[in-house]
Amino acid sequence: MKTTQELLDSLLEHKASINLASSQVKNQALAAMANQLEAQADAILAGNALDMEAAQGRISPVMQDRLLLTKERIEAMAAGIRVLIDLEDPVGLVLEEQVRQDGLRIQKRSIPFGLVGMIYESRPNVTSDAAALAIKSGNAVMLRGGKEAFHSAQAIVTALKTGLEEAGVHPGVIELVQDTSRASAQEMMTAKGKIDLLVPRGGAGLIQAVVEQATVPVIETGTGICHVYIDQDADLDMAVSIAVNAKTSRPSVCNSAEVLVVHKNIAPEFLPAFEAALEGKVELRADQEAQAFLKQSTQAGEQDFDTEFLDYIMAVKVVDDAQAAIAHINEHSTGHSEAIVTDHSETANRFTLMVDSAAVYVNASTRFTDGGEFGLGCELGISTQKMHARGPMGLREMTTYKYVVSGQGHVR
Amino acid sequence: MKTTQELLDSLLEHKASINLASSQVKNQALAAMANQLEAQADAILAGNALDMEAAQGRISPVMQDRLLLTKERIEAMAAGIRVLIDLEDPVGLVLEEQVRQDGLRIQKRSIPFGLVGMIYESRPNVTSDAAALAIKSGNAVMLRGGKEAFHSAQAIVTALKTGLEEAGVHPGVIELVQDTSRASAQEMMTAKGKIDLLVPRGGAGLIQAVVEQATVPVIETGTGICHVYIDQDADLDMAVSIAVNAKTSRPSVCNSAEVLVVHKNIAPEFLPAFEAALEGKVELRADQEAQAFLKQSTQAGEQDFDTEFLDYIMAVKVVDDAQAAIAHINEHSTGHSEAIVTDHSETANRFTLMVDSAAVYVNASTRFTDGGEFGLGCELGISTQKMHARGPMGLREMTTYKYVVSGQGHVR
Repeated sequence: MKTTQELLDSLLEHKASINLASSQVKNQALAAMANQLEAQADAILAGNALDMEAAQGRISPVMQDRLLLTKERIEAMAAGIRVLIDLEDPVGLVLEEQVRQDGLRIQKRSIPFGLVGMIYESRPNVTSDAAALAIKSGNAVMLRGGKEAFHSAQAIVTALKTGLEEAGVHPGVIELVQDTSRASAQEMMTAKGKIDLLVPRGGAGLIQAVVEQATVPVIETGTGICHVYIDQDADLDMAVSIAVNAKTSRPSVCNSAEVLVVHKNIAPEFLPAFEAALEGKVELRADQEAQAFLKQSTQAGEQDFDTEFLDYIMAVKVVDDAQAAIAHINEHSTGHSEAIVTDHSETANRFTLMVDSAAVYVNASTRFTDGGEFGLGCELGISTQKMHARGPMGLREMTTYKYVVSGQGHVR
Repeated sequence: MKTTQELLDSLLEHKASINLASSQVKNQALAAMANQLEAQADAILAGNALDMEAAQGRISPVMQDRLLLTKERIEAMAAGIRVLIDLEDPVGLVLEEQVRQDGLRIQKRSIPFGLVGMIYESRPNVTSDAAALAIKSGNAVMLRGGKEAFHSAQAIVTALKTGLEEAGVHPGVIELVQDTSRASAQEMMTAKGKIDLLVPRGGAGLIQAVVEQATVPVIETGTGICHVYIDQDADLDMAVSIAVNAKTSRPSVCNSAEVLVVHKNIAPEFLPAFEAALEGKVELRADQEAQAFLKQSTQAGEQDFDTEFLDYIMAVKVVDDAQAAIAHINEHSTGHSEAIVTDHSETANRFTLMVDSAAVYVNASTRFTDGGEFGLGCELGISTQKMHARGPMGLREMTTYKYVVSGQGHVR
C-alpha cells in the first residue's frame, strides 16, 4: 500500500503526461476509460459487494442505496464519461491577446491547474465523474473517497487506469488515496505547492472542515439552504407549482428549497393553497404569522431557518415586503440558489441584484442549478463561494490561465 | 475609535451603496476622490510627517523613502485614480447567455465581490490605489495598513471619504482599520461570510501568514523568485541585455530576476560577457560550474536558489539542458515570472508549456509583469496562485459573477 505522500509524489512526477496531452489523446483516454468501466463491471460489482456487506446495519437504507452499484449504474457512469468527449477542450485556448506598440506580444492562454484533489464521501459515481472531468481538463487528480465506498472506488480506479494506459496516458495521473483516515485528508489540505485546487464534496461538516483547515486553494461547494420567496405580485398557481417543485421533486439534493418566504399580502391566499398541494407530504415549520394560515404546522425555532433539511421539511416565514425577504435571505442563505415568484419586474430586478447567491431565479424553481441543466455536461460540484467559480463547476472551472509573453529582446 | 468588528458591521451595512452604484456614480466618485486628495494635501502631508518622525532610526532609509509623501507623490496618487475613470466598468456585463429550448433564460452576469479586504504594509499609495480599484469595481473595502503609515493612511482615507460623499456614495464603503495590532489582521482573516475576498500585499512573511491562517477566500500575491534561463541557442547580446535588465533595472520589485540559469554550452561565452556588463554592481552567488567562468563570485549555498533577494544579488546555476532548467525552475520558483532567451522555437514552446508560472517570457525581460504594462490601468497586486486570478490583478479580477435565471413558472 502506498502512503498518501508517495501517491502525491507519484502524481507530481507523472502529471505532465496529462497536463500536456492533446485533445485527441484526452478523448481517446475518455473513450477507453468508459469502455473499461463496462469491461471490468464484474470486478467493480465485486468490490461494491464488499462495501455493501460492511455497510449492513452501519449506515441508513438511503445511504446504502447511494452506495449500491448495479450493471445499469456502471453503464450510466460510462455514459457520463462519453458525454465529455464531444465537449470543447477547455485547455489551450487563447483567451486574450495583445501586441503592444513596441511589438511585445502578450497572450493569455487557458491551461489545466495541474493537480486537482477531491475529498468526498460514499457515492461511487463521484469517483468516475471527477476522474473524467480531470482528464478532459488536462489535470492529474488525487481522489480521496469515504471508507464506506473504498472497494468500489478502488475497482473503478483500476478500470480507469487501464483505459488511460490503452490511450497512451500514464496511469499514474489518477490515484485513489489508500488511507481513508483523517490523516490523509489533512495531508491533502496542507499539500501546499503540490495540490493546485482542492474540492471537497459531501456533507456540510466535511466541507467546513476542509475550508477551515486547508492551506491549499479550496473551492467550497454544495451546502444549499435555498429560499423561495413568494412576492405579493406572484401568480398564485405559478407560486404553488414552483414552491412545491423546489421542495418536493428531490429533497435530498442541494438545490432543493429549505425555506419558504411569503409576502404578508399574499400569505392568506397562498399558504392554504400551498398546504393543500403538498397533500401532507411535507412537515411545515412556520413562524407565528404563517401558522395562522396553515392547518397543520409546528412552530419554527430559530435554527429551522439555518438548517439544510435535505428532507420533506420546510421552514416558512411571512415578511412585510420584498426588502425584508431579501434581508432574511442574505442573512440565512448559504449562497447557493434562491427564487422569487413575482409578476412585478422591478421587484424581480431588485431581488436579482441584491440577493447574493450563485444562482438567482425569477419565476422558476431552484432545482435547475445543476451542471447538466446549465449545459456543462456534468459537474465537479456546485460552488457556493465567489472566488474563481460560482454555481455549477464544469470543465472550464477546472482550468486556469497563464500569460505567455513573446519579445525580440524587450527590456524595461 | 471604532473596533475592527464595528467597522466590519458598518461596511456590511453600507456596502450596497457601492455594490449597486451605476458606472456614472462610480466615475463621479473617483473624480471627487482624486480632487480631494489634492485639496487635502496639507493634511495628508501633516499625517505623513507624524509617521516619518516616528520612523526615524526605526526603519531603514529605503523603507523611509517608501513611506515619505510629497506634493508630487500625492498628485501621482490622484492621477492614478483618474486613469481608472476611462476604463470600462467591469460590473454588470452579461458574460454569457443562453435560452434553453423550454424558454428558460440563463444569464451569467459580472458583479462585484461585495466587501474586499486588503492587508498591506507601509506604502501610502497602496491605500489610494486599492480604494480606487475597489470603488470602480463596485466593492466596499476594508483597508488594514501597517502601523508605520497609519497617520498617512488615515488622512488619505479621510480625503477619499469626502470625495465619496460629494458623489452621493456612502462614505462608509471605505474603512481604514484603526487597530494596527495582529488582532485586527486575525479578525479580517476569519471574517467568514463577511469579507468576500482578502488580498495580502507586502513581504513574504505577511503573505504566508495570511494564506495559512485565513478562512476567508485569499489571493496570494507578489513573492517573486523569478528566473532567467539562457538557452544554448540564445542570441548572446540579447541574453546579456535581458539578464542585466531583469536583475538591475529595479531590484526591489517582485518581477525582478533573482536566479540566472545558463545552458552549459553557452556558459563559457555568456557568463564572462554578463559579468562584464554588470560592471561589478551585482554580487553573483554561483554554483561550481558557473564559478569557473566568473572572475568574481561566491559559492552559492542551497538557500540562495530559494531566496527573494530584492537586492543587487543573483544566484547563478549552469544546467545540462533546457529540461533541467525547467525542472529547476518549477522546483524553486514562486510561480511569478520566468524568462527564456533562445532562438530555437521548439525549446521556447516547451518552456512556455512546462514552466508553471503566472507569466512566461520568451526573449523578453521578466520586468513586464505589471498591471500598467499589461494594460490594466493599475493593479491590486500580482497573483502567484492559480485560482481566480493569475499575474497582475486589475478591475476584472475584483469581480465575480452570478447566474440570473428567468422563467415563466419553470419547474423540474
